[in-house]
Amino acid sequence: MSDTAALKARRERLLGRNMSLFYSDPVHIVRGEGVWLYDADGRRYLDCYNNVPHVGHCHPRVVEAIARQASTLNTHTRYLHEGILDYVERLTATFDRRLDTAILTCTGSEANDIALRMAQAVTGKTGVIATDHTYHGNTTAVSQLSTRMPPVGGFSGHVRHVPAPDSYRPLGGTPGDAFSAAVAKAIADLQESPFGFSALIIDPFFANEGFPDLPEGFLDATVAAVRKAGGVVIADEVQPGFGRTGGHMWGHQKAGIVPDIVTLGKPMGNGHPIGGVVAGSDTLNAFRQAFRYFNTFGGNPVSCAAAMAVLDVIDDEALIDNAREVGAYAKAGLDRLRHKHDVIGDIRGSGLFFGAELVLDREKKTPATDLATRVVNGMRERGVLMGKLGIHQNATKIRPPMPFSRENADLMLSTLDDVLSGL
Amino acid sequence: MSDTAALKARRERLLGRNMSLFYSDPVHIVRGEGVWLYDADGRRYLDCYNNVPHVGHCHPRVVEAIARQASTLNTHTRYLHEGILDYVERLTATFDRRLDTAILTCTGSEANDIALRMAQAVTGKTGVIATDHTYHGNTTAVSQLSTRMPPVGGFSGHVRHVPAPDSYRPLGGTPGDAFSAAVAKAIADLQESPFGFSALIIDPFFANEGFPDLPEGFLDATVAAVRKAGGVVIADEVQPGFGRTGGHMWGHQKAGIVPDIVTLGKPMGNGHPIGGVVAGSDTLNAFRQAFRYFNTFGGNPVSCAAAMAVLDVIDDEALIDNAREVGAYAKAGLDRLRHKHDVIGDIRGSGLFFGAELVLDREKKTPATDLATRVVNGMRERGVLMGKLGIHQNATKIRPPMPFSRENADLMLSTLDDVLSGL
Repeated sequence: MSDTAALKARRERLLGRNMSLFYSDPVHIVRGEGVWLYDADGRRYLDCYNNVPHVGHCHPRVVEAIARQASTLNTHTRYLHEGILDYVERLTATFDRRLDTAILTCTGSEANDIALRMAQAVTGKTGVIATDHTYHGNTTAVSQLSTRMPPVGGFSGHVRHVPAPDSYRPLGGTPGDAFSAAVAKAIADLQESPFGFSALIIDPFFANEGFPDLPEGFLDATVAAVRKAGGVVIADEVQPGFGRTGGHMWGHQKAGIVPDIVTLGKPMGNGHPIGGVVAGSDTLNAFRQAFRYFNTFGGNPVSCAAAMAVLDVIDDEALIDNAREVGAYAKAGLDRLRHKHDVIGDIRGSGLFFGAELVLDREKKTPATDLATRVVNGMRERGVLMGKLGIHQNATKIRPPMPFSRENADLMLSTLDDVLSGL
Repeated sequence: MSDTAALKARRERLLGRNMSLFYSDPVHIVRGEGVWLYDADGRRYLDCYNNVPHVGHCHPRVVEAIARQASTLNTHTRYLHEGILDYVERLTATFDRRLDTAILTCTGSEANDIALRMAQAVTGKTGVIATDHTYHGNTTAVSQLSTRMPPVGGFSGHVRHVPAPDSYRPLGGTPGDAFSAAVAKAIADLQESPFGFSALIIDPFFANEGFPDLPEGFLDATVAAVRKAGGVVIADEVQPGFGRTGGHMWGHQKAGIVPDIVTLGKPMGNGHPIGGVVAGSDTLNAFRQAFRYFNTFGGNPVSCAAAMAVLDVIDDEALIDNAREVGAYAKAGLDRLRHKHDVIGDIRGSGLFFGAELVLDREKKTPATDLATRVVNGMRERGVLMGKLGIHQNATKIRPPMPFSRENADLMLSTLDDVLSGL
């Protein structure tokens, strides 16, 4: 049996069936460094997928911060410790001044689970609006926001879904109008239900929905409708946060809105399990009063040290500027490929989260979902790791570690050219 | 302003009000080593509270494992990696052979959130039974198991609470009969509800309930009633697991039962955020089929390296034997104090989770709840950190790191003698 087959069999025996695994020929990764991953045979892969190792795989400053703090103290927040205070002060300084306090958790799922309850504490209601192609995490409560699989006992009825924005197949009218109208309708519907209207939760970059290119002000009418109805806006920054989109630290800043609650996850500790919720002190205090909450590992000194090192590296290596510059460079390269390959229907994204939507017919914009799977596997065979996502699951998901360079982009582009040429 | 007052003010400003903090004079901890914690003034405290740093604060082997793996690779489980397989194989080998697969998470709360859904997947029902003084974690779904604070929108009605076992104030009859009768009644009640009966979730050591001393077989009739009704038994091992109670690796093994689902948390990674769910492959596969589940940080190579080092140290330093021996020694010491101090109404516990229940009147067993708070604060003033818990919040919570020695126990006992003498 091959190494891969043996590992897959062992994995199924120990971790169960139906556990997701990337690529038709899965990779057995043993080492990471910067934007590179290495398999057990020493083969090198350019990582165009992973946003969790935000400042690069195994960044020495993050590793050093973790090792130093882990050998000094790792305990909970029921004692006084300056690590969490220094970090939250530094973190909240990157937000609008109204967003001045935070709760730290271990995952983005835990953060969204809290955010929904924060909204409940502020509004006294439980109804939530989300988009129809989103994903906000894996807890029981947060899973209810997904349309993917009805849970045992059914959906609880407090969630309304609105069509995700789509810049490639827009609904017509002034951009943002259709979205805000759908949200307004969902608000009215919830207000007539026993749940009432509590919150709109969105990724302001709509990453899972296929990262549509939305004009400035797209969300203004939506946010106004939510506020007018007494609801709160939750911005899930697990994907666009920490400068990913280039030019802005947060996706909601790029979108030009100030949410009431912001949730953080994946890139926050470069892979060390840490997430968080940032909100105004009134919102946070309302939550703490309505729900007792304590998270044993949340905000521990080691997690805070890892997260602080991530902020240091983002600044010191000017990674937000890099995301903007290299992202623009790579997008321009994709655009050149579009002239050569008819299968590329649309190019969009921002900073180091961008990609191409693949279609079978440019005029009809017919989603090339299966072909996108072949492209992703073809890239993997040629040593470039990426994924796919979007409403039709036909957009390439290119979301590399933030130190991604022009040279890395060139390799990704030439490999993609090669794969598309071989289709 | 004193250092403590300044830190408290800064903490309230950045982390919000009502965030729990131990002791009337909180400690500002900056360093930990073995069973010792050190404050900013260099003062040393004997840690009789923290079970998270299971093999001792900053154990060099755990720190080294974390540092080594963090500098090599830290990624998710959608690639093949041997770290998680080696760990799950080693972990499940400590369980009954029917419990042969696992899902890894970041926290015990996430683990219990999954366990409830696993039970739903297996039974097709959602009703759950828990004890009336328990705590199983902080997610929205798991919080519903607590009676402490009604959530916004109210409790959902699918939880039934049964009186927690109490060996000091037993309900009468053959031990276990009253508990199994209460569970049987709750099962019947749920079966007549729209929810149906899905699971009984218990800490088999009933730690938060005050760690009653229960005879062998106490839970047998209860488990039989659950199985007969087609439900599953979830054992929450977040507190008694990993050898804490001495002589057994798991609390349910001490209780002599084989649960269907086991959840793990706090001590698993010595403070590194890792939790998990262990179950039979049929149960785990049913969950994976009914609910898509992926946890970005869960089972990452660094978490697995930390957790593997914990298992290594437990074995190599014979910490389960140590827990049994030192725990018995300390309990005998507490029993001597009982002859001197009338306030000690009962001594109980097992291994390195034991304590005294404090009463105002031995005959009436009147809980001395406020006095217990004074004792805990008096211990802190004298350099010994512990807590309190139990149905009446009047039992001392003594739950030190596992390398706790007889000498450490002597210091704890002499300090307690001193504090009780000064009341």
